This record gives sequence, structure tokens and C-alpha cells, in this order.
Amino acid sequence: MTIQYDGTAFSGWQRQKELRTVQKCLEEALSALFGKPVRAVASGRTDAGVHAAAQAVHFDADTKIPAEKIPFALNTVLPPDLSALSCKIVDDGFNARFSAKRKTYCYKLYYSPHRKPLLDRDHTHTVLLPNLNKMREAADNIIGTHDFCCFLASGSKVKDTVRTIYSLDVRRQMSDDGGAEFEIYVCGNGFLYNMVRIIAGTLLYVGIGKLSPDDVLEIIKLRDRKRAGKTLPPNGLTLVNVEY
Amino acid sequence: MTIQYDGTAFSGWQRQKELRTVQKCLEEALSALFGKPVRAVASGRTDAGVHAAAQAVHFDADTKIPAEKIPFALNTVLPPDLSALSCKIVDDGFNARFSAKRKTYCYKLYYSPHRKPLLDRDHTHTVLLPNLNKMREAADNIIGTHDFCCFLASGSKVKDTVRTIYSLDVRRQMSDDGGAEFEIYVCGNGFLYNMVRIIAGTLLYVGIGKLSPDDVLEIIKLRDRKRAGKTLPPNGLTLVNVEY
Repeated sequence: MTIQYDGTAFSGWQRQKELRTVQKCLEEALSALFGKPVRAVASGRTDAGVHAAAQAVHFDADTKIPAEKIPFALNTVLPPDLSALSCKIVDDGFNARFSAKRKTYCYKLYYSPHRKPLLDRDHTHTVLLPNLNKMREAADNIIGTHDFCCFLASGSKVKDTVRTIYSLDVRRQMSDDGGAEFEIYVCGNGFLYNMVRIIAGTLLYVGIGKLSPDDVLEIIKLRDRKRAGKTLPPNGLTLVNVEY
Repeated sequence: MTIQYDGTAFSGWQRQKELRTVQKCLEEALSALFGKPVRAVASGRTDAGVHAAAQAVHFDADTKIPAEKIPFALNTVLPPDLSALSCKIVDDGFNARFSAKRKTYCYKLYYSPHRKPLLDRDHTHTVLLPNLNKMREAADNIIGTHDFCCFLASGSKVKDTVRTIYSLDVRRQMSDDGGAEFEIYVCGNGFLYNMVRIIAGTLLYVGIGKLSPDDVLEIIKLRDRKRAGKTLPPNGLTLVNVEY
């Protein structure tokens, strides 16, 4: 099933007692619909505040409701910030997490001297205008298969930090008022914890001249988390697509 | 001064005791900044739930703060859903309401079998796919100087219902999932109460085949509010620009 959520009022995907999480809301709705406890597995966790335009989940259900009708039934029960977009039957061996081949995230930024309430929900604000070409040059240096421990949240204990980034595009749209909106689209075979937010932070640093595109090559090579950019806030991040 | 606001949590522009309105929040911040009561006049009221990307307001201030610095001072005090974008000194004869020459609004719709939480804040949802060319044909029939009492909220007591619509553009962007987003941009010398929301509702009716583009000509000619489309919800509406 593909679901969409506005992450603002969720404490992320994963169930945590007491907290309002996407998994909790979804599993409660599925359990009510099918009349027994249902566990949902997502393509991956999203952190508190992170949005999903199309998150993929799988679950087991013994029901006469045709798969494509399940979203209609579910959406009458789900809260306004969570919705099911489509549903289909998959092979028993399918696993939303382990069968995922590629994921695409989008990180959104806007440049403006002043904050813009209409963008703040899903963008990060920067008061310095980033240089698009520099960001693109740095992005090209990130594409490929690398040990990305330079873009791993400190304290994280993961053994294999090699990942493949298939594409990393930076798009810019100028506003009439002299401001600009940036969208960083990154597609990879998997991402380390906070990796997309750190990549976005690193590209922003390059854009505003705190780092050069060549520095990024060196940061990856030297596995230097400290020199990479800051982890940007979660609300700018949206999971856009999961491919199987 | 140009201000931006997310209308979701405001009871519209105009002060109403007890209620949280844009005018109230802005006047409180201005009064705190200048140390005496300040009254702000907007280009026009916006209803509860309506957003503004760039609303124009004027106010009197006796201050040594340079005009262009006022937004910086104000934005530290304003709530997250309201922001000042720019400020300049104008002639004493200037009035944000009466000096306005043209206003541009945008009404946003999305087509999808299921609701999309990431769009619901500032779009109206339609489960039928509107026909773009039909909507554009109907839009062309609305452009011009007409008695627009067919697009006036019933019960409204305004004498002069003649207005000029300079442009009315319908833009469509298809989504990867088969959905579509529509933006209706309307620029005019002024708008009757609920006029833009009724125009959007009428174009939607044409798009989904409930009305023809020719019907719209007749509705305007016969001043027939009852045959025009529904007043669409406020959250899809954004005041985009005011020209002086």
C-alpha cells in the first residue's frame, strides 16, 4: 500500500508507546478494518516531522475487500494528516523494507530575507542565497557508490556504510520577490540515518560558500563527518518514492 | 508593508473581539514595536482560512527605524504563521485599500481518487478529473468588464457589482501517480464577496461537465447566482499580489 502523510504532527513512523506515530495510526485503522491486530511494515522509518508523499508499506490481511478498495475504506477512518493512496496484492515474499530497490527523497529550501509562513511547513529557510551551480557541482561529487560514513549521524552504530546514490539533482525556482526555492532530489539504494538531511546541509554549505565542491570530494574520501554540513531540520524532508 | 500568512489558524484578516485574526496579531506587534496603538489597513479582507502570499497593508508610524528594517524587528514578535516580507515609505495619500489597482488571487485544486494530506492545507480536493480545455474556454468567457452579481455570495448587500477581470488562467500539472494539480489565477480590479471562490467553483463545474463554457456566458448575462458553481472552501484560496 502507498500512503501519504504530513509529518508535522507525527512523532515519526515507528511505534513508540504513548506517542502519536504514523505506524500506530495506520495499524489502528487497519486493525479496525480487518477486525484483528494488523502489523504494518514500511520501506523505512521516517523521523519526527519528516513527510511522505508516497511511503510504501506491507501488511497481511485476510479479507474479502478487494485490495484496490482498501484505501477508500481506510481513508474514512485515518486522520486528516494520513491517507492511503493505493493498494495491491503482492507476493508472499515481498517485504516493504527489504525488497526496496531505490528510494527518492526531496529536501526543500527557500531563500528569503524574511521567513515565509506558506513555505515553512515543508521547507528550511536560508537568509543567504545559495549558488545553484556550486551546489550542482558538489552534488555530482556525491553521486556514485561510496562509503558515506561522513554523512552518518554521529552516535549511529551501523556496520556497512557503503551506499549508492544514483542521482542527486538540485532544482531552483526564482520567486517574483527576488527569493528562490530549491529542491534537492536524491535517489539511492538506501540511506544511512540522517544521511539525506546531512547531504542537504552539505550542499547548502557549498551553496553559501562555507565549503567548496572539492571539499565534498575530500570529506567523502576522508570519511569526515565533522567537516560535512549540519543536519538540516526534518520538516524540509519528504520521502517521494520507493521503487521495488 | 507586504505580509504573508498561512490562513489556517486565523479567523480571517479583520479584527473581531476574542478571535485570533491577522489584523489583531499584526496591530499588536506594530503597537509593541512603536510603543503606541497602531491601526493597520489591508488591501482587502481575507476570510477565515484564506492565505496570503503577499497581502499589502499600510499604517502610520512615527519612528526612527528605517522602513526596510521594520520587517526584521516585527518578525521576531509575529507568530510563525504571519510574517512581514518588505516595507517602504509611501505618500500620505496612499491607502492600501483604496489605492489598489489590481489584485491577483490563486485558487488551487487537486484531482486524486484519494485525499492527499500534503496538499489539503491549501488545495481543494476533487475526485473527478476536470477537463483543462473546457475550464480554459469557460475562463475566457469570464474575462472582461461585466456585472458579476452571478458570482456574488447570496445575502451580500453591495450596490455596484460591475468588476473587470483582466486575466483568468488555468494551469495544470499532472502528477506521476495519475493525479493532477490545478491552479486558477485570476487578476481583476476588485472582487465581490466570495467571487473568486465562486468563479473557481464554476470553472470546476465546467471541468467536470456539470456546466458548459456557454452556460457560463449565459449565467453572467442573466446574473444567475443559482446556476453558477458552488463557493469552494476558503483553504484553497491565496491572495498572491496587490498592484498599486
